[in-house]
Amino acid sequence: MGITWTWVSVSLDGFITGPDDNAENPMGINGESLHEWMFAPDRDPTEQKRVDKIFSSVGAVVMGRRMFDLGIDPWGNENPFAHPVFVATHRPREPFESPNKPPINFVDSFHSAIAQAISIAGEADVLLAGGAAIFQQALAENVVDELRIALVPVLLGSGRPLFKPGGHATARFELINFHPTPAATHLTYRPIT
Amino acid sequence: MGITWTWVSVSLDGFITGPDDNAENPMGINGESLHEWMFAPDRDPTEQKRVDKIFSSVGAVVMGRRMFDLGIDPWGNENPFAHPVFVATHRPREPFESPNKPPINFVDSFHSAIAQAISIAGEADVLLAGGAAIFQQALAENVVDELRIALVPVLLGSGRPLFKPGGHATARFELINFHPTPAATHLTYRPIT
Repeated sequence: MGITWTWVSVSLDGFITGPDDNAENPMGINGESLHEWMFAPDRDPTEQKRVDKIFSSVGAVVMGRRMFDLGIDPWGNENPFAHPVFVATHRPREPFESPNKPPINFVDSFHSAIAQAISIAGEADVLLAGGAAIFQQALAENVVDELRIALVPVLLGSGRPLFKPGGHATARFELINFHPTPAATHLTYRPIT
Repeated sequence: MGITWTWVSVSLDGFITGPDDNAENPMGINGESLHEWMFAPDRDPTEQKRVDKIFSSVGAVVMGRRMFDLGIDPWGNENPFAHPVFVATHRPREPFESPNKPPINFVDSFHSAIAQAISIAGEADVLLAGGAAIFQQALAENVVDELRIALVPVLLGSGRPLFKPGGHATARFELINFHPTPAATHLTYRPIT
């Protein structure tokens, strides 16, 4: 069995989208700045290889319904991943199929989505793709083995926070990998349980 | 003339204190975890030298009134810095003097505190010591030349945020220095104006 991990781009003030995200602007105001590191013109050419290598361990993907609903159109109406996707949703529907791509399946609970993803991934890893509700639930329920953050040096002011605000929940992490680049600082944390 | 910089310990979820900070517990619930990196038992012995070297550039300090009011008792009723301090406050009072320590001066505005600190620092730097209100105003008014963050791998849930929440303010930074340690990841950013 592999591990469950996430790779999320987050602003210096803790947001994974800008404010006012909607179907027309899925990342919210200025939210696209969070993903510029993937396309930075001055990017080290070895960087894509590093990213590809990290993603090569993935065997299945879990995401939230909102991410699917807002994403499927920008993704060109197909699964953006090379692996089966499990969408946790209170509104299940038939699988979304596209030619030459694994199906996107809809599952009636977060726990069931995680369990099915782990099962189909086998020895490979499960990627938690997002969005905020999935990350927050996964952290709260200790199903994240590695939290990989691309810390992007921008402030967005508001938007959807990576970490659930409020309360007195204390959690600790261990930094197990780091990789600074001009466009983002990549930090991999392991929760200490 | 030197530069104006800050070194602030911040949780992974963006707080510089835990919740419910008060005179009895100035760092709030679990907030002391933010400062453990300064006292970590497994700390590299060269680390204190690195910290001392960074602070050796300082010639004057600016802080907010709340930081003074909550801090002066834990600091043993004396200036915790080796340099003159300027406290920005709406309630000025006579300077706070202690034997063998530079005075802590009270100034009726943030701008005046910064101006007086720059003047007395001369070729040396001005350290913005905190708290949240000082950091937020300094960032909003572009008086921070270098934002040095000790990113501590804990979640506090709530508390005083480093960056002012709300609004659509977008700001960009450049990462100019990076130094990971087990207890904190030190990141130095320069605002891009």
